[in-house]
Amino acid sequence: MTTLNETHDPALRSWVASANATGTDFPIQNLPFAVFRRKGTPESFRGGVAIGDQILDLAAALGGGIFTGESQIAAQAATQDNLNALMALGPTAWSSLRLALSRALRYGTSAQTALTACLIAQAEAEYALPARIGDYTDFYIGIHHATSVGKLFRPDSPLLPNYKWVPIGYHGRRSSIVVSGTPVRRPTGQTKGSAERPDFGPSQKLDYELELGFLIGQGNAMGEPIAIEDAEANLFGVALFNDWSARDIQPWEYQPLGPFLAKNFASTLAPWVVTMEALAPFRAPLIREAGDPEPLPYLDSPGNRAGGALDIQLEVCLQTARMREVGQDAVRLSSSNAREAAYWTPAQLVAHHTVGGCNLEPGDLLGSGTLSGPAPNQTGSMLELTQGGKQAVALPGGEMRAFLADGDTLTLRGWCEREGARRIGFGECVGTILPALAR
Amino acid sequence: MTTLNETHDPALRSWVASANATGTDFPIQNLPFAVFRRKGTPESFRGGVAIGDQILDLAAALGGGIFTGESQIAAQAATQDNLNALMALGPTAWSSLRLALSRALRYGTSAQTALTACLIAQAEAEYALPARIGDYTDFYIGIHHATSVGKLFRPDSPLLPNYKWVPIGYHGRRSSIVVSGTPVRRPTGQTKGSAERPDFGPSQKLDYELELGFLIGQGNAMGEPIAIEDAEANLFGVALFNDWSARDIQPWEYQPLGPFLAKNFASTLAPWVVTMEALAPFRAPLIREAGDPEPLPYLDSPGNRAGGALDIQLEVCLQTARMREVGQDAVRLSSSNAREAAYWTPAQLVAHHTVGGCNLEPGDLLGSGTLSGPAPNQTGSMLELTQGGKQAVALPGGEMRAFLADGDTLTLRGWCEREGARRIGFGECVGTILPALAR
Repeated sequence: MTTLNETHDPALRSWVASANATGTDFPIQNLPFAVFRRKGTPESFRGGVAIGDQILDLAAALGGGIFTGESQIAAQAATQDNLNALMALGPTAWSSLRLALSRALRYGTSAQTALTACLIAQAEAEYALPARIGDYTDFYIGIHHATSVGKLFRPDSPLLPNYKWVPIGYHGRRSSIVVSGTPVRRPTGQTKGSAERPDFGPSQKLDYELELGFLIGQGNAMGEPIAIEDAEANLFGVALFNDWSARDIQPWEYQPLGPFLAKNFASTLAPWVVTMEALAPFRAPLIREAGDPEPLPYLDSPGNRAGGALDIQLEVCLQTARMREVGQDAVRLSSSNAREAAYWTPAQLVAHHTVGGCNLEPGDLLGSGTLSGPAPNQTGSMLELTQGGKQAVALPGGEMRAFLADGDTLTLRGWCEREGARRIGFGECVGTILPALAR
Repeated sequence: MTTLNETHDPALRSWVASANATGTDFPIQNLPFAVFRRKGTPESFRGGVAIGDQILDLAAALGGGIFTGESQIAAQAATQDNLNALMALGPTAWSSLRLALSRALRYGTSAQTALTACLIAQAEAEYALPARIGDYTDFYIGIHHATSVGKLFRPDSPLLPNYKWVPIGYHGRRSSIVVSGTPVRRPTGQTKGSAERPDFGPSQKLDYELELGFLIGQGNAMGEPIAIEDAEANLFGVALFNDWSARDIQPWEYQPLGPFLAKNFASTLAPWVVTMEALAPFRAPLIREAGDPEPLPYLDSPGNRAGGALDIQLEVCLQTARMREVGQDAVRLSSSNAREAAYWTPAQLVAHHTVGGCNLEPGDLLGSGTLSGPAPNQTGSMLELTQGGKQAVALPGGEMRAFLADGDTLTLRGWCEREGARRIGFGECVGTILPALAR
């Protein structure tokens, strides 16, 4: 795990006033990266760093004299229309860039004059995906999610025998990963239907999945696994992620090889990637219950046991089209905590993914799987919230939802807070459902 | 389906003499594409066309005066280190390039003088992947494979109820797809072990899968499905493909979300992509048995019924390290025919993949799944050939194989032949097993 350093000092304040506001996602202790441009312009997309309600344009800041040596190389790498080159540089470069940014954005710095012109209001920005994702893998580390979903199918043995040994994962579709704000069209497909013939039509059980996405740094050569001790150094950062799912398409198609059209119509990634270094104050020991097996050696290290988990608060909010019309705020459907939700750590996912020789590349995305807590109001999907659709939830204003309706806007949020550290946030991961294409 | 034209005329001969030899994979009627350079040089990889035992270097040929208008644009697009730009141009451009190449390589053409200098012997070439693959999907269209494998688990109902309705597929790993000739390291991983604890070590059941890979042309925008009538126009071509599989890792890890480490350590793609136009003489009606259901409308068209299938002969050959030492030729393990093996056509795979809105991109790879015939000597994997490893096969020289051993070289071959058409081939898809990494 990254150790604490001057960039984590909770007393630090920025000359960007909004970064000092209570409750901001982006104080100077955070400094997450995104790829952005001014909304509605033909500008090139390029790397930026969030500070309060502003974005520091890294390409513009290059001439500001705040970077030297390794931080200059790292800042230069972050000026492209994706952050892959920065991710490929590795943790020393990331750390050097973070330190330079932290010093340049601190209250009282001489860099303020030069950098003020490099700020763009987040309200005036639009985003691209932070990485050119080469491969996307979705895991299933949410043990309460796996248990709840398993119960719907197998009440007596909800968790399969491999769950506490193998970090279960599968490959997902990269081309249909979109950045937060992109509308999501309701998919059409086969569902089980009668014994004689499946049904075909728009999904009637469209759902979200509350996930975190882990973005890979340098990665490994094919055939050369990453040891768990080296896994954290291959993680660049974390972003909110929504793995939209069609619950009626999945059961009919997924045997024997796994989900396909139920998942590949769209997944939404938040623009802001919070670095592993920013998360250093919020690492925590793994949660294990009595009777849980010791992990196999390739999935175990003292560092991972002591601080492999991420203490991140998460929430899901819904605003229907009708709520928007009448000016009603989004309602919170659920909230959970990544540490309490997850059986496996990001380092274990990296070690497992590569143990057979599979190569990870800079910008690859590992989804966590749905991060539900154990309580009924901590579910990370409608499937769990409504018990497979059987218990629709009542929304303020009287609407009912068993699954998502056209026009619904789903927003994921995440943040870290604890005594003695400055709160940091992940921004938002947003998507609105469009009706299925007419046929 | 592409109609026959002058490029398919079986009477055509080339001024490249080796292209006229009986049994060549690459007569002038074929003209497949690859990405190559002179072996062991620092030259850029670039597009080439096979003609007999030679490669026509398209970048070098650009100045030869044989291309005009659309064929010039297409040839230019094929000079990069991948064929994605050519694939993105679509069938009219591909066809125009093929016609120009066919005319320029014909016996008696005036282009011979200029183009002779643009030939490089295949024996002196090395290859890169033909495409920068954005996403890789593996299907499961081999109905005899699905039946045989299903029998190992469920003797009474080998085929699942969805098989004849849904073209079953799942997303695979793109980063570990390598070009033919790249050695493949035996993967290490968890296997079932005792009730108390899984085993961990090198796979003892390493296997191949005889597949075809379909390479996507223009593709579709997210949310806009490709109708089956338009599916063929989105297919650039076909290459041999080996989806290496660890049969002992798969059963322990694959529930509930599908194969992961059992497959993602390596897959091997042949360098030569045979275009759909070259395959026009070898299209055939779908095979359906009495009682097979009518496909749902989005998977059905008159053209697909009449000629959606591909009549391609396939074979698998094995040469062990010991056979190499004593100079013994590879032995044929099995042979099959893609049309007899497959329940679904490439057009049905494209229509199904996109029906929910998933976008395909130029250079995406769709694997067919294992193409086994119904007979015991037509199996596309060791799993079937040896009945799950229970009946090891004897090799000439006395060695036995239940699964692949270190040092084994596996070669896939494919070709089309029928009365009234010139035989065309797919080259080879080769891989040799390296021992697992020492730990």
